[in-house]
Amino acid sequence: MDHLELPQFLGLLLAILGAAKLFGALANWVGQPAVLGELCAGVVLGGSVLGFVNPNTEVLHLLSELGVIILLFAIGLETDLNKLLKVGAASSVVALVGVVLPFALGYAVCRMFGLNDVTAVMTGAALTATSVGITARVLSDLKRLQEPESQIVLGAAVIDDVIGLIILAVVAGVARGEGVSVWGIAKTTVTAFGFLVATLLLGRLIVPSIIKGLSKVDLPGTPTMLALLLAFGLAWLANYAGSATIIGAFAAGLLIRATPDAHEIERGIAVLGHFFVPLFFVVVGAAVDLTVFNPLHSENHRTLLIGGALVIAAVLGKFLAGYAPFWIRGNKRVIGVGMIPRGEVGLIFAQMGLTSGVFDAAMFSAVTLMVMVTTFLAPPLLKLWFPHIPGPASPKAPDAIEDLVMEP
Amino acid sequence: MDHLELPQFLGLLLAILGAAKLFGALANWVGQPAVLGELCAGVVLGGSVLGFVNPNTEVLHLLSELGVIILLFAIGLETDLNKLLKVGAASSVVALVGVVLPFALGYAVCRMFGLNDVTAVMTGAALTATSVGITARVLSDLKRLQEPESQIVLGAAVIDDVIGLIILAVVAGVARGEGVSVWGIAKTTVTAFGFLVATLLLGRLIVPSIIKGLSKVDLPGTPTMLALLLAFGLAWLANYAGSATIIGAFAAGLLIRATPDAHEIERGIAVLGHFFVPLFFVVVGAAVDLTVFNPLHSENHRTLLIGGALVIAAVLGKFLAGYAPFWIRGNKRVIGVGMIPRGEVGLIFAQMGLTSGVFDAAMFSAVTLMVMVTTFLAPPLLKLWFPHIPGPASPKAPDAIEDLVMEP
Repeated sequence: MDHLELPQFLGLLLAILGAAKLFGALANWVGQPAVLGELCAGVVLGGSVLGFVNPNTEVLHLLSELGVIILLFAIGLETDLNKLLKVGAASSVVALVGVVLPFALGYAVCRMFGLNDVTAVMTGAALTATSVGITARVLSDLKRLQEPESQIVLGAAVIDDVIGLIILAVVAGVARGEGVSVWGIAKTTVTAFGFLVATLLLGRLIVPSIIKGLSKVDLPGTPTMLALLLAFGLAWLANYAGSATIIGAFAAGLLIRATPDAHEIERGIAVLGHFFVPLFFVVVGAAVDLTVFNPLHSENHRTLLIGGALVIAAVLGKFLAGYAPFWIRGNKRVIGVGMIPRGEVGLIFAQMGLTSGVFDAAMFSAVTLMVMVTTFLAPPLLKLWFPHIPGPASPKAPDAIEDLVMEP
Repeated sequence: MDHLELPQFLGLLLAILGAAKLFGALANWVGQPAVLGELCAGVVLGGSVLGFVNPNTEVLHLLSELGVIILLFAIGLETDLNKLLKVGAASSVVALVGVVLPFALGYAVCRMFGLNDVTAVMTGAALTATSVGITARVLSDLKRLQEPESQIVLGAAVIDDVIGLIILAVVAGVARGEGVSVWGIAKTTVTAFGFLVATLLLGRLIVPSIIKGLSKVDLPGTPTMLALLLAFGLAWLANYAGSATIIGAFAAGLLIRATPDAHEIERGIAVLGHFFVPLFFVVVGAAVDLTVFNPLHSENHRTLLIGGALVIAAVLGKFLAGYAPFWIRGNKRVIGVGMIPRGEVGLIFAQMGLTSGVFDAAMFSAVTLMVMVTTFLAPPLLKLWFPHIPGPASPKAPDAIEDLVMEP
């Protein structure tokens, strides 16, 4: 970890936020979502090009994690729980098929290449979890977050994030050479889903009266800051209870949406989001190592071959999952494509595989390549099949949540 | 430096922001400015009570520094440069007398206690610089930032911050046992003041057209983020040019104020300020060591005696400086009291004295005590002599800059 002084830190923030805005504008200019530009900004600033941003720098890592927490909180603020529950069956089926299919395909690819069982399980696991951050951000960039397809994708991404945590706990045991106990899996499952359900049930009873009571305190910026504290609190609690921080933040958003100050809070959180959220995407981009793509180096051939096969498995698995809820109408292509991007969870599996010795450097790079390609593939495909339809002209409210997460 | 993981970091932010809001509300409730509550929150969370917040934690240190940069940027956004120049002569006299008098008194106190020349010079220097952050925040809490007295205090605090940098450079040489060169002092002086003048002159020509050109780029939250980047950029440049980061941020605010998007930017920066600014005051409070106040420990007696004498010197020196611009009318008590709080610069001198061996532990604690007492003394005195007069009812805009820095 680097030690940072204030001037260096200011320099880093200038470079990261400046590049994010610049590349975001360029992405918009060529008709792509801004988030794609921010990821590219990260690649350019990262170790394989300029080497200016090290994603492992403690303060950058922590601020980028705050960014994804604030993003999921903002998405939650824009999500109607009833709407989400209405597509709950479809979301659940997409999530389940979207976990089983990529796992099976990834496992098969590894066995085809003659890899052992543990490596194949670990790789399959790395293919399971959709990056809800990237998908949600792209859908909001396209201003189509409120449509049924988006709601299904969002619900499925949240569910498969929870499933991902369960798989992570199981696979971590396998990597350590421990056995798999049904009791352990059951406990993890109940905790992970239980947190979400308990929070939403209890929160709906408690949060409105807390907000009402506290809003009598007249301090500058109180509603937004209190809402943010709730988001941080539930994120912290979710982690503590064995769930994921972003699930807690998303739940906080769903709860706050039902309170009278929701609109003011949305605007405040959007401003914070414009600062923190690009930090997350730039840091994700900065973790990309472009050198594994160089076909002139013979040691990259095996990585590129396995990585390529994994990309096909990862894309196909999630894409087909979009067709699983056979009873609904709507643009199923979009559901499948929305599930494609893998992000931080895939990278966590890759990292765990490397440190536990299950993956060698080539396998680590192959899984990283799969994460990178799926992340960069989804935004343009979504844009292509789910274009932003300009809605009726509404009075433009700059800096409002509508810019980050807009209703059509 | 502690190594932090995300859950711990979330816990820290929850504790700091939660305590800041709670103690801020309590301070308001007993009729004191919120900033006093935030400082108390820091004391309670800090090493001498709960031990929960370590002000040296890297990420907290960096974020609190961002807080004071954003605060000074927000103050700059609310400051009319012409108004500031109109009281320029008064500000300059207050600043100069407010540097010379406390220095002389502090030097005299040390010599009275039989301390050597270098220690006395170092101590005198530690008494010179007003904490512009604390003063500006109190004046804005009282919603009297626009009055002539406040403008004089603000101008004087900025000028004496620049003088403080020059003294710092000179005293650092003395502490290292180097001689004092007139050429060196002249160079430092020209750089420090030159940066401010050059930035404001050049900026007034360039900034409006940059903002105009960039505002055509249609990205979420662009005006606020671009303004923030300008503030970070000038803060970085100021440091690089040998001036202080907060001077750069203040200059950025003065420049942005003249652009058409100023009002929107004020609102956005206020939201960011509600997050970052309390971090600064809580971290300042957390650095307070209450144990030096315990009179039951005999080793504290000398510290308390010298510290007490330094407090009198520090208060008297700045208070009398308020009466120096004899030709103006207005509440001169308020000017003097506004100059009283010492903050981070005083602590920097104390730290430098300790590490260079010029101060022993007792002298270090005595200077720290002076900083603490002056910081906690100014808010209630200002509140007493410069009470918040409720202005004409204006439509309440929550989360607006008016909450942080309000026009009457």
